[in-house]
Amino acid sequence: MKPSSSTSEHGGRSPGGAARSLWGTLFTDPDVEAETSDRAWLRAMLDFERALAIVQARAGIVTEEAARMVVTAIDVGHYDPVALGEGALTSGTPVVPLVRAIGAHVTAEGRAAVHNGATSQDVLDTALSLVAYRALGPVLDGLRGVAAECERLARRHRDTLIAGRTLAQHALPTTFGLKCAGWLVAVDEAEAVLARVRTHRLAVQFGGAAGTLAAVPSGGDLTGQLAAELGLAAPLIPWHTNRTRVAELACALGEASGVLAKIAQDVVLLAQTEVAEVAEADGGTSSAMPHKHNPVRAVLVTACTRRVPGLVSTVLSAMAQEHERAAGAWHSEWQTVTELLRLVGGAVRGTRELLSRLVVDAGRMRRNLDLTGGLLMAENVAVRLTGRIGRSEAQDLVAEVCRTAVASGQPLRAALLADLRIGLSEQEIDDALDPAGYVGSAGEFVDRALAAHRGRGRP
Amino acid sequence: MKPSSSTSEHGGRSPGGAARSLWGTLFTDPDVEAETSDRAWLRAMLDFERALAIVQARAGIVTEEAARMVVTAIDVGHYDPVALGEGALTSGTPVVPLVRAIGAHVTAEGRAAVHNGATSQDVLDTALSLVAYRALGPVLDGLRGVAAECERLARRHRDTLIAGRTLAQHALPTTFGLKCAGWLVAVDEAEAVLARVRTHRLAVQFGGAAGTLAAVPSGGDLTGQLAAELGLAAPLIPWHTNRTRVAELACALGEASGVLAKIAQDVVLLAQTEVAEVAEADGGTSSAMPHKHNPVRAVLVTACTRRVPGLVSTVLSAMAQEHERAAGAWHSEWQTVTELLRLVGGAVRGTRELLSRLVVDAGRMRRNLDLTGGLLMAENVAVRLTGRIGRSEAQDLVAEVCRTAVASGQPLRAALLADLRIGLSEQEIDDALDPAGYVGSAGEFVDRALAAHRGRGRP
Amino acid sequence: MKPSSSTSEHGGRSPGGAARSLWGTLFTDPDVEAETSDRAWLRAMLDFERALAIVQARAGIVTEEAARMVVTAIDVGHYDPVALGEGALTSGTPVVPLVRAIGAHVTAEGRAAVHNGATSQDVLDTALSLVAYRALGPVLDGLRGVAAECERLARRHRDTLIAGRTLAQHALPTTFGLKCAGWLVAVDEAEAVLARVRTHRLAVQFGGAAGTLAAVPSGGDLTGQLAAELGLAAPLIPWHTNRTRVAELACALGEASGVLAKIAQDVVLLAQTEVAEVAEADGGTSSAMPHKHNPVRAVLVTACTRRVPGLVSTVLSAMAQEHERAAGAWHSEWQTVTELLRLVGGAVRGTRELLSRLVVDAGRMRRNLDLTGGLLMAENVAVRLTGRIGRSEAQDLVAEVCRTAVASGQPLRAALLADLRIGLSEQEIDDALDPAGYVGSAGEFVDRALAAHRGRGRP
Amino acid sequence: MKPSSSTSEHGGRSPGGAARSLWGTLFTDPDVEAETSDRAWLRAMLDFERALAIVQARAGIVTEEAARMVVTAIDVGHYDPVALGEGALTSGTPVVPLVRAIGAHVTAEGRAAVHNGATSQDVLDTALSLVAYRALGPVLDGLRGVAAECERLARRHRDTLIAGRTLAQHALPTTFGLKCAGWLVAVDEAEAVLARVRTHRLAVQFGGAAGTLAAVPSGGDLTGQLAAELGLAAPLIPWHTNRTRVAELACALGEASGVLAKIAQDVVLLAQTEVAEVAEADGGTSSAMPHKHNPVRAVLVTACTRRVPGLVSTVLSAMAQEHERAAGAWHSEWQTVTELLRLVGGAVRGTRELLSRLVVDAGRMRRNLDLTGGLLMAENVAVRLTGRIGRSEAQDLVAEVCRTAVASGQPLRAALLADLRIGLSEQEIDDALDPAGYVGSAGEFVDRALAAHRGRGRP
Repeated sequence: MKPSSSTSEHGGRSPGGAARSLWGTLFTDPDVEAETSDRAWLRAMLDFERALAIVQARAGIVTEEAARMVVTAIDVGHYDPVALGEGALTSGTPVVPLVRAIGAHVTAEGRAAVHNGATSQDVLDTALSLVAYRALGPVLDGLRGVAAECERLARRHRDTLIAGRTLAQHALPTTFGLKCAGWLVAVDEAEAVLARVRTHRLAVQFGGAAGTLAAVPSGGDLTGQLAAELGLAAPLIPWHTNRTRVAELACALGEASGVLAKIAQDVVLLAQTEVAEVAEADGGTSSAMPHKHNPVRAVLVTACTRRVPGLVSTVLSAMAQEHERAAGAWHSEWQTVTELLRLVGGAVRGTRELLSRLVVDAGRMRRNLDLTGGLLMAENVAVRLTGRIGRSEAQDLVAEVCRTAVASGQPLRAALLADLRIGLSEQEIDDALDPAGYVGSAGEFVDRALAAHRGRGRP
Repeated sequence: MKPSSSTSEHGGRSPGGAARSLWGTLFTDPDVEAETSDRAWLRAMLDFERALAIVQARAGIVTEEAARMVVTAIDVGHYDPVALGEGALTSGTPVVPLVRAIGAHVTAEGRAAVHNGATSQDVLDTALSLVAYRALGPVLDGLRGVAAECERLARRHRDTLIAGRTLAQHALPTTFGLKCAGWLVAVDEAEAVLARVRTHRLAVQFGGAAGTLAAVPSGGDLTGQLAAELGLAAPLIPWHTNRTRVAELACALGEASGVLAKIAQDVVLLAQTEVAEVAEADGGTSSAMPHKHNPVRAVLVTACTRRVPGLVSTVLSAMAQEHERAAGAWHSEWQTVTELLRLVGGAVRGTRELLSRLVVDAGRMRRNLDLTGGLLMAENVAVRLTGRIGRSEAQDLVAEVCRTAVASGQPLRAALLADLRIGLSEQEIDDALDPAGYVGSAGEFVDRALAAHRGRGRP
Repeated sequence: MKPSSSTSEHGGRSPGGAARSLWGTLFTDPDVEAETSDRAWLRAMLDFERALAIVQARAGIVTEEAARMVVTAIDVGHYDPVALGEGALTSGTPVVPLVRAIGAHVTAEGRAAVHNGATSQDVLDTALSLVAYRALGPVLDGLRGVAAECERLARRHRDTLIAGRTLAQHALPTTFGLKCAGWLVAVDEAEAVLARVRTHRLAVQFGGAAGTLAAVPSGGDLTGQLAAELGLAAPLIPWHTNRTRVAELACALGEASGVLAKIAQDVVLLAQTEVAEVAEADGGTSSAMPHKHNPVRAVLVTACTRRVPGLVSTVLSAMAQEHERAAGAWHSEWQTVTELLRLVGGAVRGTRELLSRLVVDAGRMRRNLDLTGGLLMAENVAVRLTGRIGRSEAQDLVAEVCRTAVASGQPLRAALLADLRIGLSEQEIDDALDPAGYVGSAGEFVDRALAAHRGRGRP
Repeated sequence: MKPSSSTSEHGGRSPGGAARSLWGTLFTDPDVEAETSDRAWLRAMLDFERALAIVQARAGIVTEEAARMVVTAIDVGHYDPVALGEGALTSGTPVVPLVRAIGAHVTAEGRAAVHNGATSQDVLDTALSLVAYRALGPVLDGLRGVAAECERLARRHRDTLIAGRTLAQHALPTTFGLKCAGWLVAVDEAEAVLARVRTHRLAVQFGGAAGTLAAVPSGGDLTGQLAAELGLAAPLIPWHTNRTRVAELACALGEASGVLAKIAQDVVLLAQTEVAEVAEADGGTSSAMPHKHNPVRAVLVTACTRRVPGLVSTVLSAMAQEHERAAGAWHSEWQTVTELLRLVGGAVRGTRELLSRLVVDAGRMRRNLDLTGGLLMAENVAVRLTGRIGRSEAQDLVAEVCRTAVASGQPLRAALLADLRIGLSEQEIDDALDPAGYVGSAGEFVDRALAAHRGRGRP
């Protein structure tokens, strides 16, 4: 059983205006913001307490009646996140005040079923898994949407010529389709890693105060039931100070972020005034500067993704957790993971919008290929000569003609025609200088990426 | 002129419950949270626009009447941060929708004085400086409070013996006062760096669309007036893509954080059940585990400070800003600096509370010194012998006696008395084994730190 | 075919003293240092060029004779890493001078088979994969050795009682075996992730100047052969600016590092003078401080692991690579990945040695359990009373007795016996206070971890 | 007294080929590499031991003869870094084996003057200060060289028009001189911060085993003498676990790195094939791609600077050092600081070379300004109309004409002339469209930056 989205349960994903903010609106997807809000955390903590009462009633550890009371008392609206934060100042986590508050909603009999045998970290680690699981719903949907846009662009522009650029210089021709296919492969890889972490690594936590389940003799058997109830993975043993799961979550988000950062950066560069090969359909404009087509979405994606690696390093640093419960490192994860989910959510949303509205100017791509007066095709001319005069000699000769062309300001075509040693016909020279004839396996590579994308299983 | 705290102007530092949150309450100082809230950012942006209208009216660039209208329209309550966030999605910053919204509150004449000659980055960079300036008020007050607590503890415990510990092992005796004096020196250093950045490096930004002030012919002269009006430093020239100021702010916060992290970590270690030399007066307790004296504040300080270095790296990474305005790196600063201020604010508050309530058990400190049966003092015995038999020989002899003591389970005193080669009287041995007699310059070092602290100028 | 270890091929893994260094000796495993040295990189680059010549000869693209010349010219001893570094200063990578140098060892015919159709990034990315593949050999062996030590300790100490510590305070009893089982599970998880990256994600690179293989018409078919020849994975398409593979390598190393950091930190804490439950068999001692048992290996492991998260963030930041070849981000990977491999190698070696020589003092563990005078067992007393007087009442009553005990300085046992409301016999009280009776599922959890470890497939 | 450069003392800065390496040659300045090599560290440790013997002899604590023996034994050539690394594996630092090795070069009398009263951290922290002090010599020289190049370019190109670019789009005209002046201000700021840290914060360390100087009764007075002898700052008290000094060093290097990263990035962007406004004089070329002018130095600078922020975060994370000596955090600094110095050294060298050979194509800059057909100047046209028809109306009208121009493919000039509502003469329109007339205070800003640069005191 998969955890139902908390939003559908509670009808209305924006739980009051409180969750939204200036920067959150700008840098986060609203669905992800809602699934990582204070209320979402509170709801996830309550989900743990409810599931715990239910499975313990089922096992006869607490009474049916007590469990029923707990289930009834579990209503997000009953509890105030800020008050829990204040209560947490003296206990270190919001769980102590939350358990106290739940207890106030039930009778003494009911209290026997509240948080029975559990420790604060059981609640918060399970809540972290639930929050991440739910937030990754829209994140993964979004990533798949990004992949779909990449696929569309790769297919449509399979043979659209564009300058291949290395170290920011024109190198050889390639196709815009291959560029998009490269994005697609990366997005598919990142999505697979993140989906795997979501399904297999976001686990319930249940170990009690020292990880031994001392207060619940048969506790070990409950873990699997808790996991099923909450739709999370069941761990081999409690993982209080084994943070591999959190690290893998952070790293998978870091990888997704890096993939999106690359797409956004390519768009910013292609959208430069001097390059102008793509534009955002409704790029930011200003009346004062009507010529600007600001790649606003790409800029915002870049802003989100630049903040991710430092947060991943925080999570990795926090893996050294002391003994049976850490004195601070664990506590440093809550907002950090929240922020990671939000930023990747924001980057996913932005990239998807960006690509769905990308205006591609294939004509400009073709014209830009001529900016070097044909020098971009020099390698191909040398290749054509190799059979006749040897590779090394061909390269030397072409290099010399190129230098002549640069020095004289001629296009390479003219310089080649003027040099008697070349020995190629005008037609042969034109063929050699045609970028369409020198994109190697670009089309085949696009086809491979598309086929692999189509062949991917979906969770 | 210093910028008045925005809070006193606007009466009531918590601008509605909206600014407070579960995690914010736990990990941030409420004053700092208020000064870094959405509304605080909005207020700071408005402060720029108001100051701009005022100085341009003074210079005759806009009319008095137009400026008056702008000043009247500048009221935080008029504007909705979330709406600005939404508006920012198409322009990249909240300034474009904000300027439009201000314009809607004035007549056409007034609009001539709105944002005249300025660019979005002028507003946001100045707002960042103002937000930081204001938030650093409580942060620096708090840091000085931390220093005062360190001073108090260092003075009171100038001669309180404690085991000096290296690599987590007892090494030689020292004093708790010297430990606190070490904290004091570090806090004073961090405070000085942060105060210097606040006063000298948080600057107004005013450069116009390309940093040339093209639309305000005499703009260069206005910068100093804007700075005076806002209580910020005046830059040499616009600093749109020169981010040294932001980097220095982040680094100073990083240094302060590291200093507080060290204090918190020492407290966690000293409060361990087995060490029990200090405790938080009202440490977290639970009915189930009555023996626990959780160092909750130290834990929360640790949580805050562990998150800071990654954020500093984000700010430093963002220094590579393209041309005249960055395509993303700049945008990555806003929440990152906000979070840095909040976390250091939280760490400062926690450390101050922690130290003000620290229960110091000098008796336990003294008893713990005996845990090694006097071996801790072996170096001093060797020193006492050196004059008579040479340093190297003394060390060898004492080492041998120590090994005998360890092997036989005797205290070192007994082993020394039993070894005829030692040749020290019982009194001499007792003197040599007295930790109070082997703390070197500890007292003098405490005095130096206290004197330097007293001698510090205050900004 | 798996890549044979470069060391076995070249006989003698320490390629001269040059590769070793002061800090490298201290912080790196010598095998890993050798596999990541300048010469190891050079060898890996040459391995690419050799394999390229071989598969192109097989495909009839170059002559057998030319390929044979290239293979003969490929000898690490022919080339000077520093000279290649100098040559790289004008071309940006050491590949340009290396190809030139190889060319100088062959005839013109041979030159046709040197680097044919390849680009610098093909060589360096493949070399990065090879260097990582080879260095991960000893790293993974070491990790498996660490797991074996954890397994041994978990098995031997399955029922060895120890205080469970949360927030650095005694919480409830647990077993040292469960602590070691927790380490084991984490090490197994990290090893599985790292092994998977090694086998499936370290890939050959072959795309030519713009990633299209323009100069090698049938190039796409060669990639699989190159991969087979070198024992690396074959990518779907060239991955020049899709850095998911490098990111996953860095993240897997980051995860392994965090797991080792946790073990080392636990050891440092358990070895403290006041705790003294474990020690390194030959811990650093000094004649001047004979009582010290410095946990030197744990300290060095900690030093290595603290440096890893920042490096991972560098790799993740570098994922935003421009167009078809990055202008700097790519170049930032080479030393960063080298350093990551070295540091994790050093941490693995240190942890393995540490655990293999760990002196465990089970008696001291048991005695430390009594430090709180039985308060550690209060929860269990309340559990025993729950059936009779209700959970809430039982907790309140026990809490009150605990307070009395603390206030009067009595052990809890005496206070319980003295309080008539308790109503438990002396035997029942002793049973309730026996830590061995309150470790819950600890033993079962150890068994699960051991069974899972035994059941792991080995690559 | 300033510390003389270690190189001049020891004649020959490259201490054998051993210090140089493939990656070091590519990413580090050779002088900085030499000053941070194994041998440089060893030399710095020996310098501490020598100075300690000298000042203790002066104070009568050890004999003149003993000190003389120590001074004679202090010769870098006597000691093997790798052997020290191996010795460090059991003691945690190379100081223990080094002191033993020095002792082997002197008589028993001499041994009394070796390392007397000092602890390993005294030696290593002082060595870190010395290594940094010496390496910062060439780093700061280089930074000043970078500033001189910026100054030269700012002066020469004070009035060279270039497109001001925001979010990678043409915004308004500016001057290349102002761009260079912005670089200059940033470099000057970073240099001042780094020079201040070098002079005032790199301090001697002298505290003995627990920071109390217990073994040297008058030790506190020696610190100043040690500082003078070594040319370092004298601390208020020992700073073993107060790491503000190391943090400030790392942060200052981080700031310098960020400043250089910005310059390199601007150059990469300006050198793009489509922009072509600057080039590296001898940019990397290849015979196969003769049109490429790879900005190789800018790429290598970028590579260096991208690796710095993660390392700074490592140093900041390491500030939480336990008690009187950290169990790992301290040890994590040595290679991290070494690497920071090397990378900033490499970035400084690269930027200086880059700027000194920068080919600036002012003609291309001017032509690129016309790429938007005059739209870049629309704001200025609106400014010219404002006096006559009001600001808001002027902006609306010009925006409409711009749209017409874009839609019809006309230059803005033609569209303005065709629109009767504009009411400006042809001359007035040409004036309004002349970029040279709309660079605001650019020239004045350049002058200010140059004046401030000239007015800087030199340390």
